[in-house]
Amino acid sequence: MEDVTGKSLECQKIMDGKVTNGNGREKVIPSCCLKAKTSDPELEAQCHSTVVSGWFSEFQSGSDKACKKLYFNNPMWPGEAHALEVENILFKGKSEYQEVMVFESASYGKVLVLDGIVQLTEKDECAYQEMIAHLPLCSIPSPKSVLVVGGGDGGVLREISRHDSVEHIDICEIDQMVIDVSKKCFPQLAVGFEDPRVHLHVGDAVEFLRNGKQGKYDAIIVDSSDPVGPAQELVEMPFFRMIAQALRPGGVLCNMAESMWLHTHLIQDMISICRQTFKDVHYAWTSVPTYPSGVIGFLLCSTEGPKVDFSNPVNPIENVGHPKSKRELKFYNSEMHSAAFALPSFLKREVQALNDAPASGKNGCISS
Amino acid sequence: MEDVTGKSLECQKIMDGKVTNGNGREKVIPSCCLKAKTSDPELEAQCHSTVVSGWFSEFQSGSDKACKKLYFNNPMWPGEAHALEVENILFKGKSEYQEVMVFESASYGKVLVLDGIVQLTEKDECAYQEMIAHLPLCSIPSPKSVLVVGGGDGGVLREISRHDSVEHIDICEIDQMVIDVSKKCFPQLAVGFEDPRVHLHVGDAVEFLRNGKQGKYDAIIVDSSDPVGPAQELVEMPFFRMIAQALRPGGVLCNMAESMWLHTHLIQDMISICRQTFKDVHYAWTSVPTYPSGVIGFLLCSTEGPKVDFSNPVNPIENVGHPKSKRELKFYNSEMHSAAFALPSFLKREVQALNDAPASGKNGCISS
Repeated sequence: MEDVTGKSLECQKIMDGKVTNGNGREKVIPSCCLKAKTSDPELEAQCHSTVVSGWFSEFQSGSDKACKKLYFNNPMWPGEAHALEVENILFKGKSEYQEVMVFESASYGKVLVLDGIVQLTEKDECAYQEMIAHLPLCSIPSPKSVLVVGGGDGGVLREISRHDSVEHIDICEIDQMVIDVSKKCFPQLAVGFEDPRVHLHVGDAVEFLRNGKQGKYDAIIVDSSDPVGPAQELVEMPFFRMIAQALRPGGVLCNMAESMWLHTHLIQDMISICRQTFKDVHYAWTSVPTYPSGVIGFLLCSTEGPKVDFSNPVNPIENVGHPKSKRELKFYNSEMHSAAFALPSFLKREVQALNDAPASGKNGCISS
Repeated sequence: MEDVTGKSLECQKIMDGKVTNGNGREKVIPSCCLKAKTSDPELEAQCHSTVVSGWFSEFQSGSDKACKKLYFNNPMWPGEAHALEVENILFKGKSEYQEVMVFESASYGKVLVLDGIVQLTEKDECAYQEMIAHLPLCSIPSPKSVLVVGGGDGGVLREISRHDSVEHIDICEIDQMVIDVSKKCFPQLAVGFEDPRVHLHVGDAVEFLRNGKQGKYDAIIVDSSDPVGPAQELVEMPFFRMIAQALRPGGVLCNMAESMWLHTHLIQDMISICRQTFKDVHYAWTSVPTYPSGVIGFLLCSTEGPKVDFSNPVNPIENVGHPKSKRELKFYNSEMHSAAFALPSFLKREVQALNDAPASGKNGCISS
């Protein structure tokens, strides 16, 4: 697209990276996106600023030393960071899988950081948790059986619990430490674990799905961290195939899917993979201030079977039952649900281009 | 609303400030919001972190000194900042009104900074400029006469120019330096000044309106900086009254209106003022990564006269004419237009509360 700077709406497309995709073909991709496919997260982490752990810095305004403030800088993508003022570090630990930290921020409440990347803050977690749960669950009638991949903070479970029709919730989280820390520091998220319909499985999601029953779930929600380290496999074709097999006909997947401002081609990659696996593929997005570029995206996919109209919720949240926790929805509502599928023109064109290109597998169609 | 932290969805409501509103009544407001009403911006700037000028900081990842990077930290609201990596400072100057700076960032293109606050970046300006222009202009049939208050970078003019029905565009910008710097550093925005329908007035908008003709404009767009310093008057009642008088019956105002995540009560204040002045008042929002919390809001108001349905564009952008610059819309489209009026539940409730409270003037109604 015409652009004076060449920098506006695309990531740093310096095509200096190569990767072999699932079909054995080599593909040239920007090096900044190798991080999503690297087989050596440690090496990538050392040489790529986007996965440099967040750093602490001090700022003193004026000559008054009492005005010195400590900030945690959350690295985002090349060339930017979001700094949150730190009041207190509450927890620092290292699990088998990642470094875990919790700090009290000046204006966003408590903050959960995994491997130096902010995962959630008390102030804006409502946007992410409510949207990732209700976008899929309000799109199908009476969901009964739900799987959550990741989500060890419990927030998605809290949201699923609003749905009286749900009878069984499996959650597969790889890192026990995340669960423990959430129960200790984020009780308003970890309350999700208290629902008697929840069955917790601590372990690898790929293994869990491999051993699981086919066609079991009405909905699967993939609430993962960025696709480096423990979540690396969760953006690859084999995983999406397992997801599709674990869903019933007309079942739905909702997957965390990056920022439309920063990595449209990562999104295109995920859409391409999903088109080969699912009947319908949609992209939605919402505002989450503490995520890179202030937004997060979601891929909504449905399997062959009864058609799912994702953008017009057939199971509106107002009808799903009395909230057991009596916690009001802070963010999600039916208008926000439909609005989430409206895409800015730059993304709409890129999604349309995928629609026009032949799919190499199933004849999936992406709606925008 | 129920909230464990008490910090989640509201600004730092330490009610330690008092202000006299337009009716002579004293009102208690959080001190952080005094900045919007202060009569002494300098004093406020010194003691409040939200209007501390952005600061430069260095970050060195690892032991390799070649990896040292310079960041500009854009202060947002209490306790956070957004850091952009600086490649080059292109301009630094001081006008009669404010400090003006332009730098080349690593990943957002060139950045315009006024009084230490980021105003626009090349990467994401499209979202703001396109929405603030087309939300009002696509809501009314064949707008002919348009006024822009502020907007000295030219971006809003560029967008208005797409509308073939428009015959006359007045722009009133207080600071000639902003115009000059934009023409030099942001040609893809300043191109807006080249349209022959544009009539530039350098000066104070309140004076301009005071001396102007009543009922002249179909639409007025207020593209201001934050309401401290030169833009301070632009959030006060007398200004909105002048705007209403300058609009024809059924004319529309679109005003930049803060972040829904950070200052819902500032938004409530603006809505309350507008309810007393306009027939209908609506709030919309969109994603702009480099603005505080990654969003910006817009107040859309219409005067007594033919009803305006803001959320369903009667003058869709696809029909407004051949873009003279042949620059594709990067962000705005009719779906994004309608979607912008979907409000998160926390804001919807606060707007509804305003609807339920009696207006002290006109019986305006806010739609959400």
